Amino acid sequence: MKKQDQLNVVFLNCTLKKSPATSNTDAFIKVASDTFKKLKVKTETIRVVDFNVSYGVSSDEKGDDEWPKILKKIKACDIFIIATPVWRGDRSSIAKKVVERLDGVMSEGNKSDGQYPTYNKIGGVMVDGNEDGAKNAAASLLLDLSEQGFTLPVNAFTYYVGEAGPGPSYIEAEGDKHFFTNNMTLLMVHNILHLAETLKSNPYPTNLNTIEEEAKAMSK
Amino acid sequence: MKKQDQLNVVFLNCTLKKSPATSNTDAFIKVASDTFKKLKVKTETIRVVDFNVSYGVSSDEKGDDEWPKILKKIKACDIFIIATPVWRGDRSSIAKKVVERLDGVMSEGNKSDGQYPTYNKIGGVMVDGNEDGAKNAAASLLLDLSEQGFTLPVNAFTYYVGEAGPGPSYIEAEGDKHFFTNNMTLLMVHNILHLAETLKSNPYPTNLNTIEEEAKAMSK
Amino acid sequence: MKKQDQLNVVFLNCTLKKSPATSNTDAFIKVASDTFKKLKVKTETIRVVDFNVSYGVSSDEKGDDEWPKILKKIKACDIFIIATPVWRGDRSSIAKKVVERLDGVMSEGNKSDGQYPTYNKIGGVMVDGNEDGAKNAAASLLLDLSEQGFTLPVNAFTYYVGEAGPGPSYIEAEGDKHFFTNNMTLLMVHNILHLAETLKSNPYPTNLNTIEEEAKAMSK
Amino acid sequence: MKKQDQLNVVFLNCTLKKSPATSNTDAFIKVASDTFKKLKVKTETIRVVDFNVSYGVSSDEKGDDEWPKILKKIKACDIFIIATPVWRGDRSSIAKKVVERLDGVMSEGNKSDGQYPTYNKIGGVMVDGNEDGAKNAAASLLLDLSEQGFTLPVNAFTYYVGEAGPGPSYIEAEGDKHFFTNNMTLLMVHNILHLAETLKSNPYPTNLNTIEEEAKAMSK
Repeated sequence: MKKQDQLNVVFLNCTLKKSPATSNTDAFIKVASDTFKKLKVKTETIRVVDFNVSYGVSSDEKGDDEWPKILKKIKACDIFIIATPVWRGDRSSIAKKVVERLDGVMSEGNKSDGQYPTYNKIGGVMVDGNEDGAKNAAASLLLDLSEQGFTLPVNAFTYYVGEAGPGPSYIEAEGDKHFFTNNMTLLMVHNILHLAETLKSNPYPTNLNTIEEEAKAMSK
Repeated sequence: MKKQDQLNVVFLNCTLKKSPATSNTDAFIKVASDTFKKLKVKTETIRVVDFNVSYGVSSDEKGDDEWPKILKKIKACDIFIIATPVWRGDRSSIAKKVVERLDGVMSEGNKSDGQYPTYNKIGGVMVDGNEDGAKNAAASLLLDLSEQGFTLPVNAFTYYVGEAGPGPSYIEAEGDKHFFTNNMTLLMVHNILHLAETLKSNPYPTNLNTIEEEAKAMSK
Repeated sequence: MKKQDQLNVVFLNCTLKKSPATSNTDAFIKVASDTFKKLKVKTETIRVVDFNVSYGVSSDEKGDDEWPKILKKIKACDIFIIATPVWRGDRSSIAKKVVERLDGVMSEGNKSDGQYPTYNKIGGVMVDGNEDGAKNAAASLLLDLSEQGFTLPVNAFTYYVGEAGPGPSYIEAEGDKHFFTNNMTLLMVHNILHLAETLKSNPYPTNLNTIEEEAKAMSK
Repeated sequence: MKKQDQLNVVFLNCTLKKSPATSNTDAFIKVASDTFKKLKVKTETIRVVDFNVSYGVSSDEKGDDEWPKILKKIKACDIFIIATPVWRGDRSSIAKKVVERLDGVMSEGNKSDGQYPTYNKIGGVMVDGNEDGAKNAAASLLLDLSEQGFTLPVNAFTYYVGEAGPGPSYIEAEGDKHFFTNNMTLLMVHNILHLAETLKSNPYPTNLNTIEEEAKAMSK
């Protein structure tokens, strides 16, 4: 169990609502977070909208940009999970802003092998909404995470949505008692944990600098 | 190198054009396939449209359905890559049909731990088009693969598309000499290979049956 | 009411299941179809999977391709509605095949003004599923219809989906008694009808040939 | 030409970059805007990021929210065009925030027929990026506009993107001289204009209150 003790997960809550407003996404995160805790993983949840995150695609937009504070925690985690509510059948504008800012890490490759700071971390996605849009939101986030350095296990995502149209959201709908969603959440957590431990002992040997040279040689 | 010798990759070419018509997607696959071969991985490419694949969401739709022939090869591979052309800014209708049929494996969990036949395999996605649509196509395929049992490495996808509007496709555009695409392809291949070896030695211990019970206990 | 008598709507049912299997999408179409009938619009529903539609992106792929039979009816209609089930959070592979084939009309511009046969027709989208994916399916279909010649009213789409996970589909879930969905369906039908009548009396004067010349003059 | 004189278009530039930074999206808008001007339509472009737009889904989030200023102009326009850059293969987070906020109008139905303030306006979408993602961005925006009260003509969108990977954006790539894009832009402008004039003379007679009653009667 030693390894598991060392693992930590960071959840980004991408709700549109600032603290202390009730966040359904926060309640959903809690289910995953509690499961991680039982498995001896340290957890932390960051509510992005409470920070002054600038628009942009770099790791530091300067001025009063607070993304660097969040990014520091992402860089220090083993497991990174983006949790977003569904608005208009898609991830929230906060979740979109997060992946725009995450592009910055791709320019932070280290000198030895060019791997950027998110390499060898595991990613996951949680989506909750009162209705339709979870898979659409999840798909684009999985693509982003895969390109931005994260490895994705089987069932890298979990979601809750209700019937078509306005209706109760996660808390009121008792999403925490919805079997399908709980099953997906548990699968995600267990698979993420296995992959995090495995990858920690077996990091990618990929040398991005060498590959870049090889790609250049193949190209015009 | 022993392990790598044992690994094999199956590519599904989801072009709309039957053999022997020239397939741009086939030319794109070849770049990845050749790279795998150099790394001692066995490769096979299946052109789905040449088979009589029935519509449906099961592993065998009976009658003259030839999906079971393809599925047999998917079940025997270590690495599974869906390659699709872009049509209308999205994956081809053949690629969509493939993931519909792949849902069948999710009902084929084994008795001991409920894992389905695709668990512990690595997935990847390749998309080529004359224009816009690659990331949209890739995102939905990554979501499908993740739910259908596959693990996705950093950079689990690679793509080539040209400028907005009609224009040359992969072969004519010399996509095989496009640096960005080649770089993505090499990264995908190398990261897939590492993850395939790693996961082969460290399969998921996840017991889907136990988790299902646990999820039931949490739910109403 | 004279004009309405002359209007006719064609629904394409993009279910994966051949007749005479029960189709939830068919039951959903019936609600819209019955509403159109009450408003004196002629209706016809075509179940695409019952036809031998070839893969491709032209209006006639020759051989035993039966798309021309369907296309003939689309060309003769005033209102064209694509109805698709959700599979894997997206439109069905049949619905995707339909829009691939519809690209063919864009090469059938007439000599006088270059407008293709679908210009001045109204489009609509219906999506039903047991769970999540309706808006994603609808969005891509609306984009396709807009580029392929159709005009889209306010509320050009309607959908029914249930809660996250496996569950009852439209018929079993009594989607025909789901208020939100019925409201969307009625809005779609009424708005489509108004726009169809309006556009029939006021067709686009747009000359695609002249515009092409103008665009060439602006470009390099 | 009288009617055209009365028409006005509002463009929302959803770039991530505040004034006075150069915006490629702005340069792209200019092509459409100049075409509208030649056709005697008044034009105005609003750069959303220069305003303090709060997160939320209502028409006024109070406090220092400046969305009401923008919304006022949207309510006063005949034609509404959302222009967004591509980031991560999708619309910008600003464009997403805009459609989240636009949901507010759907609660502002008037008493007589329940139509909300955007009914009888025409919508359009412009997307520019250095690479892949335009159709994905456009599709979700078209869905939003259709539900939020706008009518969409044939070719309701236009876009420019370059080849896969990093590369020149609209200005540097001379997107304003790209034939395909210019052709799409001109088609969009001309079709929007026709539909705006037509709908102005023939507004929807749809009574949302009556339809709601009818839908209730059909439902449980």
